[in-house]
Amino acid sequence: MSQYHPVRFVDVRLEGSFWKERLDTVLATTILSQHRRLDESGALEQLKLPKPVPPLRHPRGANGVTVHVFWDSDVGKWIEAASYALSHRRDAVIEARIEAIIDDFERAQEPDGYLNSFYTEREPENRWTNLRDNHELYNAGHMLEGAIAYYETTGRRRWLDIMERFIALIAKTFGTGPGQKRGYCGHPEIELALVKLYHLTGERKHLELASYFVDEHGRQDPHYYDVELEERRRRGIDNQLYAHGDYKYNQAHMPLREQTKVVGHAVRAMYMYAAMADLAVENGDAALKAACETLWDDVMITKMYVTGGLGPSAHNEGFTYDYDLPNQTAYAETCASVALILWAQRMLHLDLDGKYADVLETALYNGALSGLSRDGEHYFYANPLESNGSAKRWEWHPCPCCTMNVSRLVASVGGYFLSTAPDGLAIHLYGGISASREIAGTTVAIREQSNYPWSGDIRISLDPEAPTAFDLKLRIPGWAKSFSLSVNGVPVETQPVNGYVTVHRTWSKGDSIALDLPMPAERVYANPGVIMDIGRVALQRGPLVYCLEEADNAGGAVQRLKLPRDAELEAVRRADLFDGIVTLTAPARAIEPQDFNALYRTAPPRERPSSLTALPYYLWANRGQGSMVVWIPEA
Amino acid sequence: MSQYHPVRFVDVRLEGSFWKERLDTVLATTILSQHRRLDESGALEQLKLPKPVPPLRHPRGANGVTVHVFWDSDVGKWIEAASYALSHRRDAVIEARIEAIIDDFERAQEPDGYLNSFYTEREPENRWTNLRDNHELYNAGHMLEGAIAYYETTGRRRWLDIMERFIALIAKTFGTGPGQKRGYCGHPEIELALVKLYHLTGERKHLELASYFVDEHGRQDPHYYDVELEERRRRGIDNQLYAHGDYKYNQAHMPLREQTKVVGHAVRAMYMYAAMADLAVENGDAALKAACETLWDDVMITKMYVTGGLGPSAHNEGFTYDYDLPNQTAYAETCASVALILWAQRMLHLDLDGKYADVLETALYNGALSGLSRDGEHYFYANPLESNGSAKRWEWHPCPCCTMNVSRLVASVGGYFLSTAPDGLAIHLYGGISASREIAGTTVAIREQSNYPWSGDIRISLDPEAPTAFDLKLRIPGWAKSFSLSVNGVPVETQPVNGYVTVHRTWSKGDSIALDLPMPAERVYANPGVIMDIGRVALQRGPLVYCLEEADNAGGAVQRLKLPRDAELEAVRRADLFDGIVTLTAPARAIEPQDFNALYRTAPPRERPSSLTALPYYLWANRGQGSMVVWIPEA
Repeated sequence: MSQYHPVRFVDVRLEGSFWKERLDTVLATTILSQHRRLDESGALEQLKLPKPVPPLRHPRGANGVTVHVFWDSDVGKWIEAASYALSHRRDAVIEARIEAIIDDFERAQEPDGYLNSFYTEREPENRWTNLRDNHELYNAGHMLEGAIAYYETTGRRRWLDIMERFIALIAKTFGTGPGQKRGYCGHPEIELALVKLYHLTGERKHLELASYFVDEHGRQDPHYYDVELEERRRRGIDNQLYAHGDYKYNQAHMPLREQTKVVGHAVRAMYMYAAMADLAVENGDAALKAACETLWDDVMITKMYVTGGLGPSAHNEGFTYDYDLPNQTAYAETCASVALILWAQRMLHLDLDGKYADVLETALYNGALSGLSRDGEHYFYANPLESNGSAKRWEWHPCPCCTMNVSRLVASVGGYFLSTAPDGLAIHLYGGISASREIAGTTVAIREQSNYPWSGDIRISLDPEAPTAFDLKLRIPGWAKSFSLSVNGVPVETQPVNGYVTVHRTWSKGDSIALDLPMPAERVYANPGVIMDIGRVALQRGPLVYCLEEADNAGGAVQRLKLPRDAELEAVRRADLFDGIVTLTAPARAIEPQDFNALYRTAPPRERPSSLTALPYYLWANRGQGSMVVWIPEA
Repeated sequence: MSQYHPVRFVDVRLEGSFWKERLDTVLATTILSQHRRLDESGALEQLKLPKPVPPLRHPRGANGVTVHVFWDSDVGKWIEAASYALSHRRDAVIEARIEAIIDDFERAQEPDGYLNSFYTEREPENRWTNLRDNHELYNAGHMLEGAIAYYETTGRRRWLDIMERFIALIAKTFGTGPGQKRGYCGHPEIELALVKLYHLTGERKHLELASYFVDEHGRQDPHYYDVELEERRRRGIDNQLYAHGDYKYNQAHMPLREQTKVVGHAVRAMYMYAAMADLAVENGDAALKAACETLWDDVMITKMYVTGGLGPSAHNEGFTYDYDLPNQTAYAETCASVALILWAQRMLHLDLDGKYADVLETALYNGALSGLSRDGEHYFYANPLESNGSAKRWEWHPCPCCTMNVSRLVASVGGYFLSTAPDGLAIHLYGGISASREIAGTTVAIREQSNYPWSGDIRISLDPEAPTAFDLKLRIPGWAKSFSLSVNGVPVETQPVNGYVTVHRTWSKGDSIALDLPMPAERVYANPGVIMDIGRVALQRGPLVYCLEEADNAGGAVQRLKLPRDAELEAVRRADLFDGIVTLTAPARAIEPQDFNALYRTAPPRERPSSLTALPYYLWANRGQGSMVVWIPEA
């Protein structure tokens, strides 16, 4: 099969209402709001070096706020998100703010290229002494992604030049050569950023550096983190600010290629797996691809929330053991779902298999999107699947990683819709997009029109400049139990292979394809290994997972609603809610608290016939606080 | 109604198999095992003052273990438990060990009577500077209880004298007089110990000191904890070792008489309420009694686990909000259930109302007893109501408070069975006891024979030395839906008032009473405010709450068993389990994990007819690790 490559988001115009609304909110509100919050938090001030007053060794800034070692990454990620936004709509105010930050980065960069505001201010002599905990290479990765994005959008090279100098220093510092440190970052990120730089520049050295980091990660005898710990002890350095003793936390307990179980911090894992998939493609590395596939299966068979959330535990912000998917205490960090999308997209381009796009879609519409409020300036870091009413979106966070992860995702979401090969076009997601790409030597105007995810009624028009033969691959989502397809009104009888139907023909101007994906409301059950969800059912329609929220269901805690197994689910278009959505309603049984005037009794609580209304999960907690459940008890 | 007073445990002989087995285990194993563990932990070494090497300010002993400010209390509580054990069976080895500890206490006591190994070793100049956090008066309370118990058992006064000197210093130090500190302990305990000392000595000054502490607790304007904090700041003392900023944690957010909601650390709350009930009795303090009743209702209506466990949250080891009773993460500290028993017994003697004895019994047979393993030397600190299989009893704990709380409870359990009034005898608990008491001027031999809690078939014989008229009050437990009563074979038709039936007659030698409490297995439902238990049912038979444990139920996680609403529960005598117990069995539905080879799917998991076996909760986790649930999903 031909190799497919994603069509970049700058080449895909979002026209459908669902993503256009989210994109407009991010452009109009989120980007500038995030800049303001970064400023208020001290993260921008932190970049201004040297400081007028001598810095404290203790990581508490002069203004009393704790300065985090990872703040540079958040600034980098904001510039990445802002640059993606600028691709849609240039904005002098935002660009001026980015330029001001680049001024600071320029001043903060040391003569040899080193750039890290935390170490340069506080412990310049201790750089690279604690790769496990202190995020220097992670920061470099996010700053590099930001620099690439800003260059691609504006053509301005200044920050990219800064980062290339820093990367050159990193390449000189780390490696297997004489005098080099055989280190690698405790928080993966630089690896996938280096692959991006390779894609931009074509310089293989960047790919090689990424490969080095991946190959070293988890190498034993000696373990680099033991080596650097010994060195810190020797030098009396006590800078283990974010220590987390277990190398499993960093996926560094054994070489990556040997790993078969997903462990540790969820975002670290996903960023690393994304880089591994990148390198499997670029290096044609079958062993790395096989490792990715094994790890993928482990996540998918035992560790993913139905929302595409990852990492049940707040303790390690990550994974625990098979089937441990508690609902109310789910961590399911927004970043982890965003990073899962990154990994899934890369897996999809290793093998054009709809199972990857299915997960990408689930995480996108549910576990990632839930991280951003409707108003574009409130967030969830953790995305639980149940709330007693105490959960509340926050305005900002001392570790604001999730905020820019969701804004950069939305600002670049068009990049997940299409891929092209020399002789083919693949459409992965639906929702109203247009693009113009060269396929099989001809420029083809592509337009997909739909009201997805609310409807599965999809119209696609292909307008090649001249009649051209190529494959059109359309994803039939895993959630679709049936579909119908026609080309120019003529039904096409075909079955999907690996989640895609392929129509090969000579396409001509005005060709139109109708794909109908019936979208009934479905019940979803969890594997009985997930003991928290036994006797419970989740509701899904199309790619959207639903929840019960107190705002739509009178009578207090939604945990008191039960859905009879045989109750009919109805999809209801609600123009009055959130600019128009589809809710699900069903007859239900409501447990009555009123007459139960003791804490315990031998008579069961009374139930009465009732109904329930379910809301797409990504929209929860936008109407004040209240109880919420995804997994509804079945009666 | 006449005032009833409990018959002390030393005057009640345990003859029934249930408590005899537990008592024998504590006598044969637990007491010496706890001494060994205290020794290994460093708590006994800590008492040996002065230390040969200069102490560190940092609370880490020379041997590397952390020295806790509350260790003196644990030693005191061990002596209390050991003394109770000695009341049953004197033991020269144990007595020698106690004497050796008293030697150390004697040497550690400062000339003015102060006794606290932590402060005396480390910060002698800082005594009484942090009453909120650092447990000095709490320690004094437990040491005083230990000294009283040892004196009562052995007649040896040495430690009691030491403690009376210390109490005299405390009385001089704290109070409303000139030059006195208006402080009180952040961890209640000394208050109820002082009432015990008053009971022993008859000296009202001890009652007055207890009343002072209760009256001051939570007084505002100024708040004593603010005053002492200010003073610490002034002196530059940084000894807030166990700080927990919120005064609610200490029940010190407002005066106790004004409190209507149970808040904060559960054990602190229960110890304080027990003392309040004591003082309400001793001082005839109606306002304090009313406060106790209001707080009692708050716990009973919204905050108690069905096992008599208290405090859902590990964070504050205590209470959160109404109906917050999570199962797997339940803290439900053993100490809190023991302390609830202390409170309940005092409430029962304020008003002879069976509702207090019901709770006492529930906590005794379930939430407290579960804290001690069958073998007598493994423990639970937290007593969750569900486990995924990871819970495991521990051999010891850095904070070993629960271990001696459960051993002193078992060693003195006979003290909860009977009360007498000048003209009456009340029997609260059943299970096989005998005693001889003077009632209405005549010595009456009392014997209660039963196989309680396994059977409700109870025979009582009363043998007064001469025919004597008095009330016999028999508790009809709240769990009993019916009962039958006969005296000398003649049925007595009567209804319980406040949980007790009263038989007034002239009793003569050989009179025998038969009380039959039918003991069917019952379903128990939680108030629908407890969202965690919706759709779930607990099983109870007599006073015992049951659980499903993996050891009795094949097929993996017991969370996959559902109990149909109409399934018949059968009580099964099992001679093969734990020396003979009653299990409950029922037809069940088992959810099959085998064919579910995905994480999620739209078809529900298969169920098959099955059965379940439930074990008394107090016995869980005695056969290795495995899943456990109290609240079983109902089908």
